[in-house]
Amino acid sequence: MADRYVRVKASQGKVYYGLLELNQSVKILDTAPWLGGEPNGELLAPDTYQLLAPCEPSKIVAVGKNYSAHAAEMGGEVPKEPIIFLKPTTTIIAPEAAIALPPQSKRVEYEGELALVIGERCFNRSPQQAITAIWGYTIANDVTARDLQRSDSQWTRGKGFDTFCPLGPWVVREVSPSALLQTFMNESKKPLQCSAIDEMVFSPDYLVAYISQIMTLLPGDIVLTGTPEGVGPMQQGDRVCIEIEGIGKLQNTVILREPLPAIVDEDITVIQ
Amino acid sequence: MADRYVRVKASQGKVYYGLLELNQSVKILDTAPWLGGEPNGELLAPDTYQLLAPCEPSKIVAVGKNYSAHAAEMGGEVPKEPIIFLKPTTTIIAPEAAIALPPQSKRVEYEGELALVIGERCFNRSPQQAITAIWGYTIANDVTARDLQRSDSQWTRGKGFDTFCPLGPWVVREVSPSALLQTFMNESKKPLQCSAIDEMVFSPDYLVAYISQIMTLLPGDIVLTGTPEGVGPMQQGDRVCIEIEGIGKLQNTVILREPLPAIVDEDITVIQ
Repeated sequence: MADRYVRVKASQGKVYYGLLELNQSVKILDTAPWLGGEPNGELLAPDTYQLLAPCEPSKIVAVGKNYSAHAAEMGGEVPKEPIIFLKPTTTIIAPEAAIALPPQSKRVEYEGELALVIGERCFNRSPQQAITAIWGYTIANDVTARDLQRSDSQWTRGKGFDTFCPLGPWVVREVSPSALLQTFMNESKKPLQCSAIDEMVFSPDYLVAYISQIMTLLPGDIVLTGTPEGVGPMQQGDRVCIEIEGIGKLQNTVILREPLPAIVDEDITVIQ
Repeated sequence: MADRYVRVKASQGKVYYGLLELNQSVKILDTAPWLGGEPNGELLAPDTYQLLAPCEPSKIVAVGKNYSAHAAEMGGEVPKEPIIFLKPTTTIIAPEAAIALPPQSKRVEYEGELALVIGERCFNRSPQQAITAIWGYTIANDVTARDLQRSDSQWTRGKGFDTFCPLGPWVVREVSPSALLQTFMNESKKPLQCSAIDEMVFSPDYLVAYISQIMTLLPGDIVLTGTPEGVGPMQQGDRVCIEIEGIGKLQNTVILREPLPAIVDEDITVIQ
């Protein structure tokens, strides 16, 4: 099995990067592996820690309509250039954490995606030069309030609610181009999404190059590479599982978020 | 004069938050003022430091078409709800730093804006509850590649190039609602933008509440409140100055960015 790089919360709330062993113990690293982290000799025993999202990105850059069948199900064509957008880092949640459905939306959907973990500062690169900036791979759920995505001109609100980016469970250094990405809901064994990741339109190296020609990518930053066809809604109580062969399974539950604060009309004013 | 909260780079590259004195010396604070920073007794003499952008936000949330005359000049109406979008933090540059015109755009424009500095963790608030989350105010230039903003469905590329968010020169705790925001180019004394900030459609407290109902705002985060009418292009060699009464002047020069890396057709491929 490939090395699995994790981030964990241990006793007293201490947070570590680490290597997950086969027996579920964690070898602690002295910093993030993409910053050159090495084992410091300490070991966390199984069941003494909790998995966190495996990175702390300064930004999450995501790509829309990067699988042709998904572009079609969204009612559009494959774009000529990548459509990029940002998700705030406050969307990130850990494996097994709860996706909170916000009261503003009537339809929140899962989008299983391959996530790239950037390993080095990366600006203005060609695709050939961009390959080395991809340190590893993990799994993301690009959770989307579909009704708000459709009604707003910008996707920031529909894609940007807290908890809308489950990430993990760990980072691996390599993934096979033919690896299947599958999304399962609850106990069903029938995948709702099922696509090889090499069906994406713009490849990881092309995406990283394209983004780097706009903005500098930093170590630990995340690039979401788009979702294949088969997106659909999640309801309170659901359990969603996104699996990529050779990486693992990202599983999260779904809850309702607290109601909005009361707003009265006179709140809508200019500066007093 | 109101207290001016700065962030500076001093000798040996050391970075500090501080209070700018009238004689241009800087009282060093032990942490960011919105985190409770207090003077530690040290003082930087004038001319021994360089001003940086006054915050290190985890995110920049910006608002589109928040002045009616600007919405009209963009060919649209005032939105019923705020249009929010994100700028990556890699857009931030210091006062006097250079805005770099990227080769992908033929028209890069200035947008002078009032920037709100968030002082406390802020989630799901009403406008009344949001007021206390605004720690202070500074000035931003929401630099925009107008041609790309118009051609792309999402504004991320057009608004997201490195250097596209000059910020500063410092943070003040209060600003008058009637304060004028003015933008000047080069030596001209005729403002290209000139509007009182209380002409904005959605007020700062309303904007912070609206955003907080989507995503958690964190101390040091920045909210850009939209630009008034009078936006226009910048050229290599220009010097742009955005002034808000009671805050100060944010001045930046304009240069050309390095060319794109060579890209050959076979780069556009899926994963190999």
